[in-house]
Amino acid sequence: MSDAKLEIIPLGGLGEFGMNCMALRYGDEMIVIDAGIMFSEVGHFGVDLMVPNFDFLEKNRDQLLAVVLTHSHEDHIGSLPFLLKKVNVPVYGTPFTLRVVEPRLEEHELDHCTQLNIVEAGSTITLGSFTVEYIRVSHSTVDCCALAVTTPIGTVIHTGDFKFDATPVCGDAIDVERLRALGQKGVLALFSDSTNVERPGQMPSERVVIPALEDIFDKAQKRIFVSCFASSIHRIQIMLDLAEQFDRQVLPVGRSMVRNIEIGRRTGFLDCADDLIIDSKDFKHFNPDEVVVLATGCQGEPMAAMARIAHRNHKQAWMEEGDTIVLSARQIPGNEKSISRLINQCYKNNTNVIDSSQARIHVSGHGAQDDLRMMLEAVRPKYFIPIHGEYRQLYRHKLYACRELGYSDDRVLMMESGDVLEFDRENVRFGERIEVGRISIDDTRSVEMDDAIIRDRKKLAYEGVVVACVALNEDTGTLMSQPEISTRGYMIVDGDQDEIEELRNVVLTTVEGVPAGERVNGKREVFQEQIRVALKRHIQKLTGQRPTIIPLVVTV
Amino acid sequence: MSDAKLEIIPLGGLGEFGMNCMALRYGDEMIVIDAGIMFSEVGHFGVDLMVPNFDFLEKNRDQLLAVVLTHSHEDHIGSLPFLLKKVNVPVYGTPFTLRVVEPRLEEHELDHCTQLNIVEAGSTITLGSFTVEYIRVSHSTVDCCALAVTTPIGTVIHTGDFKFDATPVCGDAIDVERLRALGQKGVLALFSDSTNVERPGQMPSERVVIPALEDIFDKAQKRIFVSCFASSIHRIQIMLDLAEQFDRQVLPVGRSMVRNIEIGRRTGFLDCADDLIIDSKDFKHFNPDEVVVLATGCQGEPMAAMARIAHRNHKQAWMEEGDTIVLSARQIPGNEKSISRLINQCYKNNTNVIDSSQARIHVSGHGAQDDLRMMLEAVRPKYFIPIHGEYRQLYRHKLYACRELGYSDDRVLMMESGDVLEFDRENVRFGERIEVGRISIDDTRSVEMDDAIIRDRKKLAYEGVVVACVALNEDTGTLMSQPEISTRGYMIVDGDQDEIEELRNVVLTTVEGVPAGERVNGKREVFQEQIRVALKRHIQKLTGQRPTIIPLVVTV
Repeated sequence: MSDAKLEIIPLGGLGEFGMNCMALRYGDEMIVIDAGIMFSEVGHFGVDLMVPNFDFLEKNRDQLLAVVLTHSHEDHIGSLPFLLKKVNVPVYGTPFTLRVVEPRLEEHELDHCTQLNIVEAGSTITLGSFTVEYIRVSHSTVDCCALAVTTPIGTVIHTGDFKFDATPVCGDAIDVERLRALGQKGVLALFSDSTNVERPGQMPSERVVIPALEDIFDKAQKRIFVSCFASSIHRIQIMLDLAEQFDRQVLPVGRSMVRNIEIGRRTGFLDCADDLIIDSKDFKHFNPDEVVVLATGCQGEPMAAMARIAHRNHKQAWMEEGDTIVLSARQIPGNEKSISRLINQCYKNNTNVIDSSQARIHVSGHGAQDDLRMMLEAVRPKYFIPIHGEYRQLYRHKLYACRELGYSDDRVLMMESGDVLEFDRENVRFGERIEVGRISIDDTRSVEMDDAIIRDRKKLAYEGVVVACVALNEDTGTLMSQPEISTRGYMIVDGDQDEIEELRNVVLTTVEGVPAGERVNGKREVFQEQIRVALKRHIQKLTGQRPTIIPLVVTV
Repeated sequence: MSDAKLEIIPLGGLGEFGMNCMALRYGDEMIVIDAGIMFSEVGHFGVDLMVPNFDFLEKNRDQLLAVVLTHSHEDHIGSLPFLLKKVNVPVYGTPFTLRVVEPRLEEHELDHCTQLNIVEAGSTITLGSFTVEYIRVSHSTVDCCALAVTTPIGTVIHTGDFKFDATPVCGDAIDVERLRALGQKGVLALFSDSTNVERPGQMPSERVVIPALEDIFDKAQKRIFVSCFASSIHRIQIMLDLAEQFDRQVLPVGRSMVRNIEIGRRTGFLDCADDLIIDSKDFKHFNPDEVVVLATGCQGEPMAAMARIAHRNHKQAWMEEGDTIVLSARQIPGNEKSISRLINQCYKNNTNVIDSSQARIHVSGHGAQDDLRMMLEAVRPKYFIPIHGEYRQLYRHKLYACRELGYSDDRVLMMESGDVLEFDRENVRFGERIEVGRISIDDTRSVEMDDAIIRDRKKLAYEGVVVACVALNEDTGTLMSQPEISTRGYMIVDGDQDEIEELRNVVLTTVEGVPAGERVNGKREVFQEQIRVALKRHIQKLTGQRPTIIPLVVTV
């Protein structure tokens, strides 16, 4: 077994943002670090989210020992239920992380059959030939860890998501001493988060947002509505402290906000007086200057609390002239329009809106260039592999390591999801790629969607559908009816009835062009296809359009 | 006539970005300032762009005297052909602006029937009771003007798009003296661009990008590819100058780039030696260090020159390891993904990519807060109305004027598209709103799209289509065939044939539930609807989905 090689097999998150998932195999034992999702655009062809293609893990199910989680963000844990449904293995994670995972497993009815194992930051677990050490790192949520995975070949470190924050609001600071100690013992490879590689300098501590928020609380005369990610536990603690300081009650609104505050308090990361937080149904009993509402929906999601409050269709809370709205989050690319709609609506209510373009009320949880430098300098790995980012971020992370830290080209390895990196005692090489990809999920029904379905929907969306139906004698194939034509989303160019009549004639001509006996029984499919092609050609020639065409033959 | 009122009637661009269009009516005479488009997301339901609803102008066609254009950007001129097709009136604009308009009118076969009237910046035209003075302003394209429109009631100024640039690269600087002189004579109302109200300070001169670009040219060893908006004439002049300085030939690639450089030279805004610019077909004849390619596609548009060059499917130009790629433009929100795809691909070619996050190679053409302040201070209007922006920008522009410049609340009027503002000699008031809206355009066919078409396409995109067909006896309504079912983009949940069989049974049950005589002749439509509703209910109950359902009855 000592001649076995260590394989690194990213199933997602390298060459793309989100869907982070990486398998490590030593001999015939395998562990998986994280199992995340990628968000899709809202309502886009009915796709709610995307998960990695887990075929490789299914095929090697007997080798898979466990899933080890770095932290509780959706892009690291969201696809766990979909993976566990295929291969049910024990899951390891920190206390806060597993508390967030639990309700998700319940939703998928996996709670009774899944083994969740709590690992405290700083401790080590053994999984077959792997020992996995959980090392505290700072990030925008709490209880996050980098993982140092030791095998007989050597130790590799996976940073998870991180920044260097010496003064986090909740919990301990990043354990840079331990990273350095591992570096001194010798680290074979570092896999490090590339998300913010394009940002110069060091990412400030979470505490940097306190003064501007304090100023906002100080000036607010009426209600304060704060929207941030429900996972931003440090940010929420800051709000609890400010509420206490300015004699306001805190009302969490929105399911994930209520739930995460509850988990944060239960795990000891959030700390406040018992009577500080009150139920949102009591909103109406308080004067405007006595409350701060913590609401979900900082990306302007139309069904989330903040947008519903702004549009006055939330049951319990509302905003009025003079209230203060604080959007304490970044704009995720693609959400600009919904965020603008939210801000527009808040201004129409004559409220005071403050977002991160106007005051320092948000800071990222991903390290900038100096953080990335510190990680590399602490760990001093033999090989460095940028992870978490599109090719653009991975490449710039490589350039940064080479130009700023003097790494030689052959020590920085560029990998994308599906690439397989093989370490043995002497060398490193790329193995044969495995098949990876994004599986679309209809989250309402929790089902995987076939790519063909999405392809068909895209075509329907683009130019609509034309349906043509005729009845034939089922024995002879003789035409028994006039063709019926119906359309949806298809743009009729010159006068409805004329064009429909032409389409009918195309069908009739096609029917006449095929001998009656060639239209029915075993040949119906082929005949239907002939109708489809004839209509397609006619429509494209006449109007330039390429709608979906559905030909139907009924037999009488 | 001296008792007539002046009405300000924005048809687009207030409360939304793009589609700028504003009518001014005095008595029974009307002019329109600008006629722009709003871009739609690429390929979204077949909608290429949106234009204002011109019904109001059509209804009052006898009153409309002219369209006066402030500058040549699409969001100010793009809907002109669609307006002129409804109401053909003379068009006024500066030389560069009209040269850009010309080929667009040709595409719509309007070139022979449209009167284009050149107005030089600094001159004045008379249109009925209106005199319109063209006042030079700075912006990212050239030959841009603010318009001072004088009527018997007073003078109103429409800024168009502007910034204060004392040192523009091409043409004259903003004519702040003239704005101030008008301010001293008394301006009734100022309508001022709000695009960049959220940015503090003054927007730097276009020249601010020269040092970083010079540095890039200085360091580049091989080819340089620059992508910027083809309308950014100042930026293009900078590239021409740097090419000359560094002994490189300039190769414009992409139709609009070639065309705009030609127009820029013809109108005297672009200046270079005759042999500097060469045809892109000669790309292959030059050494890498002898060329700079100016390419369209700075937003990563997959069919534009830059993306095709990066993906090695451009006929004439290609990139190689060591080449330098310069993206000298802002990211328009919504384009992040396509821009990232372009950058990823450039890095896969091992080229050096520089965008505006890494070096100061882009500056906006819209004024920031200090520019907006200078405009207000120069013009000192009685009333101020923020234009060009979503409600968010308009509102912040109002707040800025009130808080920073001491405007009282009643002097800053908030308008959105469709609002009508009425000035008489004494007062200002809001009149009755007019109907406005966005008309979707299928640009391939240059036709307006019915909202119902888009609604149908959205529904098809979301959950697909189910078609059901049966044959009935045309006299008696007796069922003559088995139902046929076909689907596209519809997610069959549990096993194909079973579910299709169930749908057939639903149709059969529905047929049986309706007396034969109630199914045909005048009642066929009603009967089809009964089938549709039965299938809809069944599918929704069974699967939670709501596909489009098309029932078809043929009669034999």
